[in-house]
Amino acid sequence: MSRPAAAVLLTGSELLDGRTRDRNGYYLGASLSRRGFRVTHVVLCPDDPEVLRRDLAFLLDGRPALLVVSGGLGTTHDDLTAAMVADTTSHPLAADPEALRMVTETTRRVAQRRGLALDELLPQMARQARLPRGGRAIAPAGVAPGFVLHHGTTAIVALPGVPWELEAMWPEVLAALAVEAGVAPPCALTVRLYGWGEVKVAALLGSAATDRLRLAITAASGEVTVVAGYDAGDREAAAQADALAAALRAAGPVFATDDRRIEEIVADILRAGGATVAVAESCTGGLLGARLTELPGSSDYFLGGALVYADAVKRDLLGVPAALLQAHGAVSEPVAGAMAEGARTRLAATYGLSVTGVAGPGGATPGKPVGLVFIGCAGPGKTVVRRYEFPGDRPTVRAWSVVAALHLLRRTAAA
Amino acid sequence: MSRPAAAVLLTGSELLDGRTRDRNGYYLGASLSRRGFRVTHVVLCPDDPEVLRRDLAFLLDGRPALLVVSGGLGTTHDDLTAAMVADTTSHPLAADPEALRMVTETTRRVAQRRGLALDELLPQMARQARLPRGGRAIAPAGVAPGFVLHHGTTAIVALPGVPWELEAMWPEVLAALAVEAGVAPPCALTVRLYGWGEVKVAALLGSAATDRLRLAITAASGEVTVVAGYDAGDREAAAQADALAAALRAAGPVFATDDRRIEEIVADILRAGGATVAVAESCTGGLLGARLTELPGSSDYFLGGALVYADAVKRDLLGVPAALLQAHGAVSEPVAGAMAEGARTRLAATYGLSVTGVAGPGGATPGKPVGLVFIGCAGPGKTVVRRYEFPGDRPTVRAWSVVAALHLLRRTAAA
Repeated sequence: MSRPAAAVLLTGSELLDGRTRDRNGYYLGASLSRRGFRVTHVVLCPDDPEVLRRDLAFLLDGRPALLVVSGGLGTTHDDLTAAMVADTTSHPLAADPEALRMVTETTRRVAQRRGLALDELLPQMARQARLPRGGRAIAPAGVAPGFVLHHGTTAIVALPGVPWELEAMWPEVLAALAVEAGVAPPCALTVRLYGWGEVKVAALLGSAATDRLRLAITAASGEVTVVAGYDAGDREAAAQADALAAALRAAGPVFATDDRRIEEIVADILRAGGATVAVAESCTGGLLGARLTELPGSSDYFLGGALVYADAVKRDLLGVPAALLQAHGAVSEPVAGAMAEGARTRLAATYGLSVTGVAGPGGATPGKPVGLVFIGCAGPGKTVVRRYEFPGDRPTVRAWSVVAALHLLRRTAAA
Repeated sequence: MSRPAAAVLLTGSELLDGRTRDRNGYYLGASLSRRGFRVTHVVLCPDDPEVLRRDLAFLLDGRPALLVVSGGLGTTHDDLTAAMVADTTSHPLAADPEALRMVTETTRRVAQRRGLALDELLPQMARQARLPRGGRAIAPAGVAPGFVLHHGTTAIVALPGVPWELEAMWPEVLAALAVEAGVAPPCALTVRLYGWGEVKVAALLGSAATDRLRLAITAASGEVTVVAGYDAGDREAAAQADALAAALRAAGPVFATDDRRIEEIVADILRAGGATVAVAESCTGGLLGARLTELPGSSDYFLGGALVYADAVKRDLLGVPAALLQAHGAVSEPVAGAMAEGARTRLAATYGLSVTGVAGPGGATPGKPVGLVFIGCAGPGKTVVRRYEFPGDRPTVRAWSVVAALHLLRRTAAA
């Protein structure tokens, strides 16, 4: 059973010249893969009509089931997506009544906010209501609507390039595609594990009945995601998927069956328990706090913390005993525990979460190689410290450390 | 004067399915743009021979001056780059003596480290020494060598996909291309400014003589980069470039004429002065500390800091007076100053650097809109606080805040 192919075309000159680091390609690739698509291309393309035309033709020529185009739906001369899709697919541009209704509504809000008359803004904004003929408008999250256009066996989906707009509109797109003929994303069951490597998960999959499933395993920073895709209506496949999920749950450290990022899961657990967290970071230098505060509203549960790079700061800010540092070194189980307890006590938090390790490339000593990290979590009852040896270079060790800390907090707070 | 075109092909299935967020495309796009190339494509491509072959043919068909391919140079069956380039360009694979010398040397080191005999490892590793005929090996930073192959008017450069290896090998590639015929990157003068918007910089450029220059302006998080490209040997253009640089220096807030990131510039300044820094972060939640500790060896100048999300923590960890918080609110000039001074004093650092603001989307109050950020820098002599109103969503406000803080530290420490 081959998986349906999907291609992604990200438009915007700023993505190619170092101004903006793309985030939509990563988001869409992950989402599509989890739903059982095989992502064959992610192409970044400047706002140049000739290049865009050539790229669209090339990607359509591969006959993917789905082509997602992001960006170029605004009101300026750089916004070429609708015109180029119209051109490439021979569906000429025409004013779409539903799109015009959406654009008029958002324009009215914008006009009110800026104290302008609707008539002043609408002519310029109405450009966004011109779609390739046969296209269907997708309601905007910001100002510009998107659209879906069926072209041969390919569903072309155009969305704004602003990440939050794209991400807000995406679930509706997936749902809409599922009910339209021809491009229904296959059913997919997601199971996510932390604490088992990819190889161990693969071994378990190998011992289960999966002949009617399209299996995909992906791993990132220690998290392993299993997606079992199957065709809607295939009851035997659905039963295999359920059995597989049950087997993974019974044997493995399953932490989620949805797409929530670990910081969202932690946020939900802390909020539900009315709990708070404070961090104590050494080698991650602030990455853990930054991750915990990525979500709006994180002040509900995140109090703050201490970045304790220098040993003197570990003592002064967190009260880690000098004798402990002397006897065991900064990268050690007792110091990780004392850091977590110091953060918990000094910030009066429910949980104190600490990270101390050797991120590299320098700093290794006999018995303490690059990648050695201790993570501590101090809670109301007790303090737990785990020892890890992470692979890879400095950014990798730091990224794995943050994810490990969030999972230790998840397990502690959910217990 | 048209700019030479460059295309980038990033191979690796993990880049398309959500496992890994690409960083090479962003790095190469920025570097090539700064050197005057017009980057027409960044394509992410799975480890699938059919897709890779089709993508290579498509990109070569556009006849770019430069095609950079990353990834797929290792020793496993997924490592297809050399074979596919050979196939697409009709330069058959052959063992390259220079590449074999490089691979043997690195294999010897790997064998020693793992306590293995060279003969055990070499047969597998020698695969990396097979290059398309006519290709020239590029010395590896890790294990796999890269190569350059001239095909028609295109220079094809293949590099490993591991970011640190690619980044370590890249300067040599640029230098080598510059001395080889046909693909010499044009001369380029770089001037980087902080504190002026793109529009203001563009206005100054408009009043200078630039008819012999290829100008590119890019902006990111408040930093504006001007690149003036010209052909080697064009003396008139070189004079225009020099005059332009002088004009920008005379009128604008120029901070660099090279590619060093702001955290590298700050690191150089602090190291040169034997100075240290401690941070006090509210809305950035650790991003500033994370950025300052991205560089290996940052413990030379980074001591640590306090993440003070909750008001009580601002008081307890940094000694910000409750009365100050009460009177002015947490997002205010006096509190930013007290945070910076608290970090400086409590961590005994040369400089204390603080950030407090409204990152959004919630949290705005009358007079304190989303995007309002105060940044403080406390030094030996005095404390400076700056007020900013940054555009955009939560991640944007946080990213701009970090860059603003690093620039305030740069100005203070360099003074």
